[in-house]
Amino acid sequence: MDEVEFHKKLKGKIKITSKADLYSSYPIVYTPGVAKVSEYVAQGGSAEEVSIKGNSVAIVSNGTRVLGLGNVGPEAALPVMEGKAMLLNVLAGIDAFPLCIKARSKEEIVKVVEALEPTFGGIILEDIETPLVFEVEKALNLNIPVFHDDQHGTAIVTLAALINALKKVEVKEGRIAVVGAGSAGYGIAKLLNTYNKNFSIVVFDSKGALSKEREALPPYKEELAELNEENYKGPIKGFDIIISASRPGALSKENIKGAKVLFALSNPVPEISREEAEEAGVVVYGNGKAGKNQINNALCFPGFMRAMLDLRIKKPLPQHMIAAAEAIAHCAEDLMPPIEDRRVVGEIVRRVREKA
Amino acid sequence: MDEVEFHKKLKGKIKITSKADLYSSYPIVYTPGVAKVSEYVAQGGSAEEVSIKGNSVAIVSNGTRVLGLGNVGPEAALPVMEGKAMLLNVLAGIDAFPLCIKARSKEEIVKVVEALEPTFGGIILEDIETPLVFEVEKALNLNIPVFHDDQHGTAIVTLAALINALKKVEVKEGRIAVVGAGSAGYGIAKLLNTYNKNFSIVVFDSKGALSKEREALPPYKEELAELNEENYKGPIKGFDIIISASRPGALSKENIKGAKVLFALSNPVPEISREEAEEAGVVVYGNGKAGKNQINNALCFPGFMRAMLDLRIKKPLPQHMIAAAEAIAHCAEDLMPPIEDRRVVGEIVRRVREKA
Repeated sequence: MDEVEFHKKLKGKIKITSKADLYSSYPIVYTPGVAKVSEYVAQGGSAEEVSIKGNSVAIVSNGTRVLGLGNVGPEAALPVMEGKAMLLNVLAGIDAFPLCIKARSKEEIVKVVEALEPTFGGIILEDIETPLVFEVEKALNLNIPVFHDDQHGTAIVTLAALINALKKVEVKEGRIAVVGAGSAGYGIAKLLNTYNKNFSIVVFDSKGALSKEREALPPYKEELAELNEENYKGPIKGFDIIISASRPGALSKENIKGAKVLFALSNPVPEISREEAEEAGVVVYGNGKAGKNQINNALCFPGFMRAMLDLRIKKPLPQHMIAAAEAIAHCAEDLMPPIEDRRVVGEIVRRVREKA
Repeated sequence: MDEVEFHKKLKGKIKITSKADLYSSYPIVYTPGVAKVSEYVAQGGSAEEVSIKGNSVAIVSNGTRVLGLGNVGPEAALPVMEGKAMLLNVLAGIDAFPLCIKARSKEEIVKVVEALEPTFGGIILEDIETPLVFEVEKALNLNIPVFHDDQHGTAIVTLAALINALKKVEVKEGRIAVVGAGSAGYGIAKLLNTYNKNFSIVVFDSKGALSKEREALPPYKEELAELNEENYKGPIKGFDIIISASRPGALSKENIKGAKVLFALSNPVPEISREEAEEAGVVVYGNGKAGKNQINNALCFPGFMRAMLDLRIKKPLPQHMIAAAEAIAHCAEDLMPPIEDRRVVGEIVRRVREKA
């Protein structure tokens, strides 16, 4: 059965069910008893104590930057967000609901997400185009955790894989090329810079290296250009470590020659294949595809969101993200643990708690 | 255990779970396979076929008119909406999610609800103050079913109870007082007028009978004043049938003297008790309290929403509502069937289908 047929048969990968027996509890869970619970909250009691709010997360997307597909719109994004809801549910016991919204401007997205605050314990922003998503993140005024998966999640799993890669190869200079200046490239470059000040990081967008001489950059790319301390302006060539979150074909053998570590994170089709990378002399290769050593957010966001909910972390700070990366790295035998490893979520929560 | 303790223990009356085994289906339900499903929708396939959308309903409230409590706000409304989600789930197999939103103006509510359209197969508007909710309903531009429970649901269960009440008593003149001119009063008066043109209906708000001489009425009350063909301007007195959707104490024995049928629908505390009604000579008394002969939306909205989803009815028309009322009446032994009667949902769907 192919993927579409599988989904047609299932008609939804998640379902909502009741946690109490309706018939025996009816006058308590519904009228008249529920009025007392409403009054309890109205008089200052916490909705998180008495409702789904404490454990519920909205996965919000407007479908403008879905997987490797781009701007497919909110309805087409729904199967992806449902898949994420499944992961959050099965791996971390979170009541996650996909909310694919028809909203294109910053103002619209912010209004909708802020309006949803009374219902949800946390928000995951997902597959929203850059720089819009950064503007949304900045503008959101919420009292609940907000996780931007493409930025924070990808950065965490990339750092986890890099921690383990650097146990296998020695990298003297620590020069890192981050290819792709979207949410993922931004998150990765910023986190690696905080993790190890000795890393020398150059971020590339489709026009080349981001340096102080590039003109008319949006604010988030200006931040990335600041990381380029050597003011490198050349092509992707001669880096020890290459981390790409771009698109299939964004890297050639020429680009990666001499690199010890290469992560090709474009998904579902990586920027360059393992075979070509190995032919070019890469020692440690990783990509985001399902299977062994998968460098994929899926290994991060269930555990990290569990930690944010439980510890009421409103915004991921670098120390939380590094703790989560170390947790994931710790669970791996090689580069990354498999998705089946049930220790990962608990290890993330434990280590983030130590830093919170 | 009291109601608040029960809810604290449960921490949410509904939960979200996965419908497929994550580990064996991972590359199909998530990356890379899900990209094909997104593409299928992006290229014109229906999201309802391949996602939760076809069976998902948002129960939207801003908490401005909750039960008998009034404007308690969206967080305090959450336990009530969760209870409704339970009913929709257990009774009609619908994936219903409570969305209590921070939105007070028509424009805000409409924006949020319209933005949610890609995710949901239907919308239930619930416990939003009048006349705001009427303005919202009018302004919403959606391609999915919208059900306004306080208006449509209450009207349907009231008509169901009245159909059975009129089997037990003879009412010669058919003069009906509808007490309370909120969503429920509006829905009831309009539906009863369509159901039987011989009914003579007078609606009362807190200032008295709605007649053509009342000044500065909002549009929906002007519509109700139109129903008052005899241009009655007196007090609530001398009506054969009294249907009240108002507040505790809104009716006295004096008001109801001589009435054969009295429905006191304020919930959880009715306008007047069964005892007082019987002392005043009422033959058929009904209220919304849990138990035997409960005249409560709970008997309607699960089945009616199932019908709207399955038959893709975007707006409830009088013939759909009358069919649903007849279905509910048919299932009752006395006035109303019990909430435990599993035939009700199927009977509503069957009869609405005949009219659709």
